[in-house]
Amino acid sequence: MRLACQLEEPPGGGRVFSGIQPTGVPHLGNYLGALENWVALQNQYPSILYSIVDLHSITQPQDPAQLRGNILDMTASLLACGVDPERAILFQQSQVSEHAELSWILGCLTSMPRLRHLPQWKMKSKLKNEGSVGLFTYPVLQAADILLYKSTHVPVGEDQIQHLELAQDLARIFNNRYGNLFPEPSALLSSTRKVKSLRDPSAKMSKSDPQAMATINITDSPDDIALKVRRAVTDFTSEVTFDPETRPGVSNLVTIHAAMAMISVEEALSQARGLDTGAYKKLVTEAVVQRLTPIREEIERLRSDRAHLEGLLAQGTRRARELAAPVLREVRQRVGR
Amino acid sequence: MRLACQLEEPPGGGRVFSGIQPTGVPHLGNYLGALENWVALQNQYPSILYSIVDLHSITQPQDPAQLRGNILDMTASLLACGVDPERAILFQQSQVSEHAELSWILGCLTSMPRLRHLPQWKMKSKLKNEGSVGLFTYPVLQAADILLYKSTHVPVGEDQIQHLELAQDLARIFNNRYGNLFPEPSALLSSTRKVKSLRDPSAKMSKSDPQAMATINITDSPDDIALKVRRAVTDFTSEVTFDPETRPGVSNLVTIHAAMAMISVEEALSQARGLDTGAYKKLVTEAVVQRLTPIREEIERLRSDRAHLEGLLAQGTRRARELAAPVLREVRQRVGR
Repeated sequence: MRLACQLEEPPGGGRVFSGIQPTGVPHLGNYLGALENWVALQNQYPSILYSIVDLHSITQPQDPAQLRGNILDMTASLLACGVDPERAILFQQSQVSEHAELSWILGCLTSMPRLRHLPQWKMKSKLKNEGSVGLFTYPVLQAADILLYKSTHVPVGEDQIQHLELAQDLARIFNNRYGNLFPEPSALLSSTRKVKSLRDPSAKMSKSDPQAMATINITDSPDDIALKVRRAVTDFTSEVTFDPETRPGVSNLVTIHAAMAMISVEEALSQARGLDTGAYKKLVTEAVVQRLTPIREEIERLRSDRAHLEGLLAQGTRRARELAAPVLREVRQRVGR
Repeated sequence: MRLACQLEEPPGGGRVFSGIQPTGVPHLGNYLGALENWVALQNQYPSILYSIVDLHSITQPQDPAQLRGNILDMTASLLACGVDPERAILFQQSQVSEHAELSWILGCLTSMPRLRHLPQWKMKSKLKNEGSVGLFTYPVLQAADILLYKSTHVPVGEDQIQHLELAQDLARIFNNRYGNLFPEPSALLSSTRKVKSLRDPSAKMSKSDPQAMATINITDSPDDIALKVRRAVTDFTSEVTFDPETRPGVSNLVTIHAAMAMISVEEALSQARGLDTGAYKKLVTEAVVQRLTPIREEIERLRSDRAHLEGLLAQGTRRARELAAPVLREVRQRVGR
């Protein structure tokens, strides 16, 4: 009977929130692991927010000029991959001050051990010799990103599930203490397709891989793509099979082939029948080039018009604020200000 | 030769920042330890900001309705004590979103051990069985409070010196990485007058003291004041002397007497000559009542006009934002957004 119950309702049909760090132009792993899914979600949910999360990226040292460029490159790339600013609100996190404000409030509801036990902190803090306060608290900011829009669905990779659980816990803790306000966001487990490094198929494909040959960027030229695929680590058997455990290198190529040609793994294997890995790599190259060429050309076009990109982000900021401001106002009110 | 050097300059003659938690009506310890000094500083510096730091207060659980009331009570009290909104910008921290935003950015420049070693965290986290993330990170928010206005001077008690050192370090770290922007704020060590609990002169006078008789609130009636002073712990010698080490109870009364009557300790002792502690307590009561009566009456008057208080805070918010917004814009620009 309480009006607050209405607030708890997910906005008609659900709202999706997802964020991506401004690493510049995405690589094939980003594209197949997340962005392709982002594009598909636009047809499945009535309300979508995609955020370029620059406040997260500064938890690691960044070169300012490069960060600025990376934000625009990521914007151009998302648009070229099919993010549609008519259907999704595409915006830059730091331009919406409500993220940092809600993060402070949620931090006051988060216990220290809760964060300390998150596996990413354990791993990163060891690598970085402890890390910064920002690196430690960034899962709280992630929770704020999600809850600020009363999001109901969040596409996540497996490595992010515990962070989403923190967001769920904080929604519950807030609702218990101050009355129902936030829906508990559900995980949309994104594709289990994991693209591996072309040089070391035991590792994920990564922007920060020191080996340039390990990573295909979505703006790579056809020649670069051909070279990288040709150099890709496989093994001593020349037949093409799919067995990620025992033959991770060649299986990674099959994964990429199937995903880029939008066919099943079985179909990819049947096309590979009779080909040795050398010949198969040409087929993979072709599928990658064919899919990425229009994206690369669109990115180039978009990059040449910086004002257009900035205008689109500004429009996204306005729309995001329109949703965020009343929620934060309600939060403040309930917390007692 | 760089333009940035100008930015480094303290605004002509210096800018003072200080914050107080919205605990409601202050007690005598707040008044003599901090607020009297706040009033005096208004005549010594051309630019003053006094903030009711509600984002700090929520690092501990708060009742929302009470917090809202406490913010207005603190506002009325500050005005009644002599804070002049024409000379000082008096505002509520949470209304200026730039505090939380700068705090996030500074957190990315703060190492975890730097915070973990601060004595207040060590103490509070033990008392509270670890505490919240907000309690852990609040010295970073304090640094943001100060630096956001390029403050040059900060009145601090001894227990806050290490927190001011963090703000100084963060000014230096930011300036080194991104070019000079923030002056390193200096400590204004506020009066060494420490008012003790009337029931246990080994402890500070405190709002949260469970013994009501221990603390004089500045709105206490003359009868309450008389009763609390009469019950104040002294010792078995009836002569009045000033020796905080061996006779902390009676010395606390001398401190209060001297401060409230605005005379020296020597003068207070000379007035006490020939009086036993019982008679002296009447003298102390008189000094306290005389000083607090106009303040109490003014608080009552101000409290009755809630709209006026809210209007004053809104005006303070506007003026604070006018100073904060360009600084945060410059910070964002330099960090790369």
